[in-house]
Amino acid sequence: MSELRKDPVVGRWVIISGERGSRPSDFGPEPVRPKLTTCVFCAGQEDKTPPEILAARPPGSPPNTPGWSYRVVSNKFPALRIEGELEASAEGLFDRMEGIGAHEVVIETPDHQASLATLPLDAVADVLLAFRERVLDLKKDPRFQYILVFKNHGEAAGASLEHPHSQLIATPIIPIMVIEELTGSAEYYGRKERCVWCDILRQERRDRRRLIQDRDGFVVVAPFAPRFPFETWILPDRHRAAFEESDVDDLRSLAGVLQDFLGRMNRALNDPPFNFMLHTAPLHDAGLDHFHWHLEVIPKLSRVAGFEWGSGFFINPVAPEDAAAALRESTE
Amino acid sequence: MSELRKDPVVGRWVIISGERGSRPSDFGPEPVRPKLTTCVFCAGQEDKTPPEILAARPPGSPPNTPGWSYRVVSNKFPALRIEGELEASAEGLFDRMEGIGAHEVVIETPDHQASLATLPLDAVADVLLAFRERVLDLKKDPRFQYILVFKNHGEAAGASLEHPHSQLIATPIIPIMVIEELTGSAEYYGRKERCVWCDILRQERRDRRRLIQDRDGFVVVAPFAPRFPFETWILPDRHRAAFEESDVDDLRSLAGVLQDFLGRMNRALNDPPFNFMLHTAPLHDAGLDHFHWHLEVIPKLSRVAGFEWGSGFFINPVAPEDAAAALRESTE
Repeated sequence: MSELRKDPVVGRWVIISGERGSRPSDFGPEPVRPKLTTCVFCAGQEDKTPPEILAARPPGSPPNTPGWSYRVVSNKFPALRIEGELEASAEGLFDRMEGIGAHEVVIETPDHQASLATLPLDAVADVLLAFRERVLDLKKDPRFQYILVFKNHGEAAGASLEHPHSQLIATPIIPIMVIEELTGSAEYYGRKERCVWCDILRQERRDRRRLIQDRDGFVVVAPFAPRFPFETWILPDRHRAAFEESDVDDLRSLAGVLQDFLGRMNRALNDPPFNFMLHTAPLHDAGLDHFHWHLEVIPKLSRVAGFEWGSGFFINPVAPEDAAAALRESTE
Repeated sequence: MSELRKDPVVGRWVIISGERGSRPSDFGPEPVRPKLTTCVFCAGQEDKTPPEILAARPPGSPPNTPGWSYRVVSNKFPALRIEGELEASAEGLFDRMEGIGAHEVVIETPDHQASLATLPLDAVADVLLAFRERVLDLKKDPRFQYILVFKNHGEAAGASLEHPHSQLIATPIIPIMVIEELTGSAEYYGRKERCVWCDILRQERRDRRRLIQDRDGFVVVAPFAPRFPFETWILPDRHRAAFEESDVDDLRSLAGVLQDFLGRMNRALNDPPFNFMLHTAPLHDAGLDHFHWHLEVIPKLSRVAGFEWGSGFFINPVAPEDAAAALRESTE
């Protein structure tokens, strides 16, 4: 029997439809297994990318040469460009704006076949610290309102290159999905004087059916009303609105928690393509009492079709309680 | 240079990024060409589907036997079920509801290899009349607030069967995307005392750069801020909130306009997978002054990835002016 469930933050309903197949083995996306090859993101190919903005290198190693453990470069085909004035204009009843922003790529390792699930813990922590450093730097540009950090892993999840990388896009407007979360959580705070995600964490820790991990200051949980099978959220257990206010110890802990989760996901779902997206407070609202930063991870297991595009409802064939159980049991 | 554009109804911004490839030939989805085969939706296989709810048959032809030109049946794997009580309940701070609704399939033709683009005009009009008849019938059930009519064509667009069919799902809640359109258009009406889609039509007919067709009471237009390359809207040119109030002549005209558009799309984009979704007024608000029904068509040419799922922004590599020009020129 299927069930409708409502996301308590944004009010979006989803259809949890257990009858449409529910075991991890029912999903057959191609596993993501990078080939043994050399690409423009590999060591020795530094001249094939735009010059590095940030990198981890041994002392004395010149920029854009081998020896790095991660590099941040501008996206060669940026969705938004950093050059120009932020001009808005009308076209009759329509509104437009110059495509000003920043679009950067974090090359996570020189090793084409590695991944955040297999890198040494320190290397994963360094990638998270690179996210923080780039956010703190781009935040100085008054034209930007928001920075979305995200990852496309595997072709089915939208990656055009298989070398391990993540991206960030700074936008001159707060994205509509973040506005929906801000509006929903402000409304909840107005009624309860509590952060809705803090309340969710308390309930999920008590309930345990959707809890995947709870360690080192982070909670890994299957949301009550997930859009996608095996959708997972990772949240700091203390209230924090802005990711970039995390300290080094926080991000080292997050690296371990993320790596543990990716290992569980890869074992349970056979190295699936996936996306992650970091939802943090808008750049100029780091201290919000009602927003709580979180990382959303969505393995790419199902297709989005006409019903979803037309309604905003999502049909999810796996109950989050079943997904969480499978991920809890997926130990090494 | 890329550009940000805002949808005037729902306020969603998209990034029109011409630099990421913009000619129809740059997209290479597998063309949708059904094989010569027999499936459960073919003539002679009527006992393989749930019993028909509606069909076009010669006089005296018994239900669930060959001879039909279209059939409507319940979906064998429904997302929502018609049986049961509409009960809502809480789980701590979460809300849930029984998965009550209706999920039907319109088998558009007995011919496995036909399509709405190739069927005789009368057959296409009959399918549209079947949509109307099913909406009018399901509307009598007071548990339903909305009916979404949609089509998934081709595996990449989410179709699990290749035989030509469309679907409808009746929901006990108004879908969030329709609520966003209702809210945005009510707000516009509040300021202007005009329907926003009527204003869009007036502007697009004057401007012509995004106009694809304008005939027989319908306008076919590339929206100003499309989420997807070659996204197209078909709207009645007179203000009408509810699709189901269309008369037989309206739907015959729509059949011709839709068929003309699908032919253009198939020629320009090599028989792409696509979805369409009918946005009409909620079942109990058929007379709204601020809502204007429309059919949204989206060829499946690009992948949705982490940035889109995390932000609600869409990156569209084809400016709608270029898409409309290509579709205008795509004549037989």
